[in-house]
Parts: sequence; structure tokens; C-alpha cells
Amino acid sequence: MAGFNSENTNGFHAGENGDAGDKTAGKVITCKAAVVWGPGEAFKMEEIEVEPPQRMEVRIRILFTSICHTDLSAWKGENKQQQVFPRVLGHEAAGVVESVGEGVEDLRPGDRVVPVFNGECGDCAACRSEKTNMCAGYAVDAMRSVMRADGRVRFYWVGPDGERRPVHHFLNTSTFAEYTVIDSACVVRVPTDAPLSRMCLLSCGISTGIGGAWNTANVEKGSKVAIFGLGAVGLAVAEGARLRGAARIIGIDINPNKFVKGREMGITDFINPMECTKPLHEVLRELTEGGVDYSFECSGNLDVLREAFLSTHLGWGLTVILGVHPSPKLLPLHPMELFERKIVAAVFGDFKPKSQLPDLISKCLTEEIKINLNGFISHELPFSEINQAFQLLSDGKALRCLLKL
Amino acid sequence: MAGFNSENTNGFHAGENGDAGDKTAGKVITCKAAVVWGPGEAFKMEEIEVEPPQRMEVRIRILFTSICHTDLSAWKGENKQQQVFPRVLGHEAAGVVESVGEGVEDLRPGDRVVPVFNGECGDCAACRSEKTNMCAGYAVDAMRSVMRADGRVRFYWVGPDGERRPVHHFLNTSTFAEYTVIDSACVVRVPTDAPLSRMCLLSCGISTGIGGAWNTANVEKGSKVAIFGLGAVGLAVAEGARLRGAARIIGIDINPNKFVKGREMGITDFINPMECTKPLHEVLRELTEGGVDYSFECSGNLDVLREAFLSTHLGWGLTVILGVHPSPKLLPLHPMELFERKIVAAVFGDFKPKSQLPDLISKCLTEEIKINLNGFISHELPFSEINQAFQLLSDGKALRCLLKL
Repeated sequence: MAGFNSENTNGFHAGENGDAGDKTAGKVITCKAAVVWGPGEAFKMEEIEVEPPQRMEVRIRILFTSICHTDLSAWKGENKQQQVFPRVLGHEAAGVVESVGEGVEDLRPGDRVVPVFNGECGDCAACRSEKTNMCAGYAVDAMRSVMRADGRVRFYWVGPDGERRPVHHFLNTSTFAEYTVIDSACVVRVPTDAPLSRMCLLSCGISTGIGGAWNTANVEKGSKVAIFGLGAVGLAVAEGARLRGAARIIGIDINPNKFVKGREMGITDFINPMECTKPLHEVLRELTEGGVDYSFECSGNLDVLREAFLSTHLGWGLTVILGVHPSPKLLPLHPMELFERKIVAAVFGDFKPKSQLPDLISKCLTEEIKINLNGFISHELPFSEINQAFQLLSDGKALRCLLKL
Repeated sequence: MAGFNSENTNGFHAGENGDAGDKTAGKVITCKAAVVWGPGEAFKMEEIEVEPPQRMEVRIRILFTSICHTDLSAWKGENKQQQVFPRVLGHEAAGVVESVGEGVEDLRPGDRVVPVFNGECGDCAACRSEKTNMCAGYAVDAMRSVMRADGRVRFYWVGPDGERRPVHHFLNTSTFAEYTVIDSACVVRVPTDAPLSRMCLLSCGISTGIGGAWNTANVEKGSKVAIFGLGAVGLAVAEGARLRGAARIIGIDINPNKFVKGREMGITDFINPMECTKPLHEVLRELTEGGVDYSFECSGNLDVLREAFLSTHLGWGLTVILGVHPSPKLLPLHPMELFERKIVAAVFGDFKPKSQLPDLISKCLTEEIKINLNGFISHELPFSEINQAFQLLSDGKALRCLLKL
């Protein structure tokens, strides 16, 4: 199987079958979940009760999950309005459908799936539009912590004295649990021959980066690209740009360790802003005869965003925001500057998950294109080591740490 | 001739031949110009000397000019950095080529032309790109007040004691003069059967509005449009949207007099923000089942810009900035809001002037489409009455006041 021939995949295929749910359907499942009880507090591996899926919901046995900066940010409670605890975080994962609720017709128990934080009902005006992937019903909603169907949770923690406390959901997904309940609009089926350990990555970060390059910017052969922030999303942009034949892919990061991995992903030039004696956009303009065609802001930092904006070429330059900006500060741009350059932002790389992700997945599984998914996995740990995995990401040491459940 | 059958055009065709320049080519021409000597000071009708065109320049006899808010803003000196006096303002006009400088091959003496403030060399990377009309050499440059060829002016005022003072240029054009010198990249030829009194309007405002609807937003049949600010640009957006078959065209202005003209231009609904008891974007979202498809900011006001942005539909909504924002204040938008809606700005409605304006002109001259150019002319005055014309625009009484030279 193209792209999956490293030794990393061995040993992961074995446990990928999950349970088809013959015995558990319709019943409460008691299982392990990594619960956060307060901002920045260590995850506690708790026994929780997971209720059966309601109408148009799906209960999934999670087999792999990885950690994204949005999880890190929510764990720290960076956005005070989103501080809802106790909570099951996690949104990048893969697993197997255990059972489905009433009305679900496109998924069956036993289906191998990835959850997606930005859903697609397929029926609303947004889903019917070619211009957006922001479904009217199931688009990402960072403020939501309960299920849409009834405004309640499906997770409960039961204390030693019988106290039953609701545990909140996160980003339509909540994948740091052995079982989770998700709206079927947020679940994408993957082929039986797809290794779930790698499909897990397409659940958020890698699709966001590749889609940013392919869908949002539509990077062409020969173009010049600058990527600000070389985490998994930034490197996935590089991978997407490389596959489109970009002539120059310039990676910018203050952590020089990122440059080693970056080279594998097709980055041609590196800039460490700490080593620059003049503004970054001036350095980039000089390097590229006036500016890059596309810049990607993958850092979530507003000063970086401004540099990314100014780094593109006058006239046709396009900046794509992929980073999440928790600060309440406004855009550091003057309206007249929009006459000279464009800036847009994209959720999930502008992929419509249910209708368009299957094509990306099939591209990963064939020789047609070679997306280097293995290259994104820097660490693999058992689920029980989730606190260590968060520390690795927080320290900038991990690209993607894959947790096996 | 379609669209020009009102009595307004009569009497204007007569004087449209100009001079072919047999006697004046290569010589200094002494003529009248409306010179501004300081911010907000009344225009003085002065005798000035106009030098012959240098390499790749064209000297034009201006026959009609009209007044745009950018002239008003420059006259008032709203942007301190752009206060350069004495100066010949004006950038919306039509006339006849008197003579051409060395190297000019696409224009000849006697050609009927419109000057355009945003030029097109046809040869640079931007001109070869389909993504921008911001020519590397001749794009609009509000800071420039001299010719590109030699960094000097072509206008001189000569005092009674023989003192010779340079008079500055404005926006690549300087049309408030009987003769002006312009880079040939900023001059578009119009057909011999086109009435210059109407072509004058395509030199800036009307092309900006129509192009905003056609090129930048690409308004489709059946779509919903909101236009913030019903000056000539805003009404031209309405005209462009109407011609594309927009189902609903909502005009917003605090001056209810604008609504009379707006109805002629195809506006279907009006909102006076002064009469609203809740935020304008809420009113618009209620009126349009969630928001308009396209909003156009034609006011140059940042609070209005934010309302225009929030008035579009979640997901596919697009705001087009056409207004000029002289305030140094930054965009009142949070980066995360760009994940929900798009916002772009357009110079000259994204038309490439030399290569694409002829098509728009020919559309005005045939039955193919019926652009209501006459409707934009609210007043006609002789050139000598320029101060009165500025007052009319400043008071919100004029849409376009046409000055005949």
C-alpha cells in the first residue's frame, strides 16, 4: 500500500477491527475516557457511561486518536468562554461504528470511520452550495458542549457514592474516550483496506493543510508558497503544495527542529525569524522577487498573520489563515491594504467532509498521489499516556502523537 | 443608440471633436485648469502651461470631466500625507488625443479616449495574470504627484512676475484641465460613435460599481445583494446586479433622497439606518433568511464596513469593499470571523482598463445590455462652475455632475 510501508504501521493493523456492537447496541456502555476536570488539569482516566446514540447519531469505538493544538488550547482553557468541564476533548481520531441511531442510513455497525469536527448534513443551503463547507446544522461550533438532538450529553461520570455527573462533549467529536457518540453528519466512512492509524490524521490537521493548499489557495505548478508555522497543519500545506508542483516552498518557524521534518515534506527554504535582521516580509519579498503567490498562516499569532499577509505579491497575493486565533485582538490590517492583497480563512481546508474526504482518502491509498502520512507521526503511545502526549505537543517536540486505544 | 436617447445627450455630441493637434504637437500648450492651491481652498481657474508628452505619454484635450468622492477627499486634504499643492485634481473624464510621445503605438492624435487612474502596461507579471488588475508600473498610486518617466510634472503655473511653479498631478490623470498629460498605459480608446459625455462616467465610478458586481463578486441570477452607500458607485453596483438578474437588491443610505434614483437603478428594498431600532445586519439577516449573498461597502466608513460584513450569509457570504477609507483605523474584524465570511476589496471593479474596458463600452453602446448611464448624471455645468459642482457633491445633492470643457 503506497505510503504506508514504514515499520510504523506494523502492529497497528492488528487491532483495527473494533466491535460491531451486536451485544451493546441500545445499551449504555461503560468504558474508559480521559476526562479533564478543569483548565490545564491533568487528564484523569475515568470510567464513564456512554449512552446509546439518539436519532441521526452514531456511537463509535475509537481505536486511534491524536492530538491537535485545538485540543491543547481547550485543555488549557485559553478561551474563557469555552471553559466547560468536566469534558472529553479530542477530535482527531479513527474507529469503528458500534451502533447507529434511528434514521442513520449511510453508516452501519462495523463501518470503519473517522469523525470530523466540521460536519455536513448534505441537505442545507450551505451543503448544496459549492462556495462553503460550513453546514447550517453541523459546522464547527467551539461553544457547543452538548448534542444537538436534545441539548443533553451522552457521557456520564458516576462517583463512588452513586453521584451521576454529565461530562461535556467537544467539537462535535470527543475522541479521548473508548466510545463516543457523534452526529452522523460528522462521521466519514473509510474503505476497509485503509489503515485507521493513518486515517486518524485526515480527521483534522492533515486535511486542513492539504485542503488549504488545494481547495482554498488552489496552488498551481511553479508557484511560490510561504508557510508560517511548521506544525502538522503547516507541514501538510507543504505536502499539498509539493504535490501540486510548487516551485518554492518556504517554511518559517522559530523552532529549528521543525526544519528537519520540513525538508522531508518538500520545503525548499527555511527562515528562522529569530535570525532575521529586518522584517520577515521584507526578507521574503527579496527572496521571491516581490513576494510569494500564497502564504499560509498556521501559527494562530496576529503578528505572524500580518507578516504572512505582507509577504505575498502585490496584486495577486493570497494569504490563507488556517491557525486558530484565541486572542480577542482584531485583525492588524487596514481596509485599504485589502485593495492590494487578499486574505481568507478556511475551516478543514474547505473540504466538505462527507462528500469530499473519501476522494482524499482514496488518493492516500493509491499510487495516484503520495501523501506522506507516516511522516506526520512523530510519536506513538498507549491511550493511558495521554498526559505525556500533551506534554510532548506543548513542548513543541511532537508533530503528531498517535494514541492507541 | 441604446441608452442615450434622453435629451441630456443632445448638445453634447456637437463639441466632441477636439483638436487633432497638428499645430500644437511638440509644443507647450497654454490653457485653462482648475488649480487647487491648498486643502479645501476654492478651485482657481488658472492659465497653465502643459508640456508635450514624453516617451510613452499622451497629451489629451479633456472635453468632459465629472467629480468623484476621491476628488472631494483630495481637495479637502483628508489624508495629510497626500496633501500636495498646487495640484490639478480630477480623474473621471473623456477627451481626444492631441499628441502622443515617443513609443506610443496604440493611440494616435484624434483618438477619442477616457483616462483611467489605474493603468495597464500589458506586459508586467500582474498584467499577464488573470488574478489582478494592479499593474506593476501603473496601478493607482495616491501618493504619486509627478510623472513616472522623469519624476517631474508637465503642468506649470506662470505668475505675473514670470515666476514658474510646478503644478502637481493626481491619480495618473489630472482631468480638471483643458489639456493633460497621461501615461499611455492609463488611456483607453473608445469607439468614434460613443458619446464622450457618457463615456466619461466609465472612467471611474460606474466601471468600479459594475465591475464590483460582475468581476469581483460575480453576482448570479437570483442572488441577494445589499449595497451600503448609494452614491454613483453604489448605484452602479445596483445596475450591475440588476443586469445579472439579482432577485433582491437592497439599498442602504442615511439620505432618503438617494432612494428615488435607486429605484430607477433596480433597487428593490431600501433601508435607512437612522430608522432602524436594531443593528443593521440583524435587520438584513431577517429580511433575507440569514443574510445576503453579497454586500458592497461603498461608503468609506468602518462601522458601515462591519455591518456590511455581518449582513452576508454565514459560509458563502462575500463582502466587497469599493469605498476608499482615509481613516488610519484598522479593520474592525476578528481573524476568526474570516472563517465564517469572506471580504475582499477591488480597485476599478477589477477591470483591466485597456484590455477589458472596451468590452464594457461596447456593451453600453449596443442593445446587448442596457446600462442606464444617463441616470447617473444629475447635473451638468460648464467647467468654470467647478466650485459649485464640488458643493453639490459635498452636500449629497449630486450623483454625478458633468462638467463640459
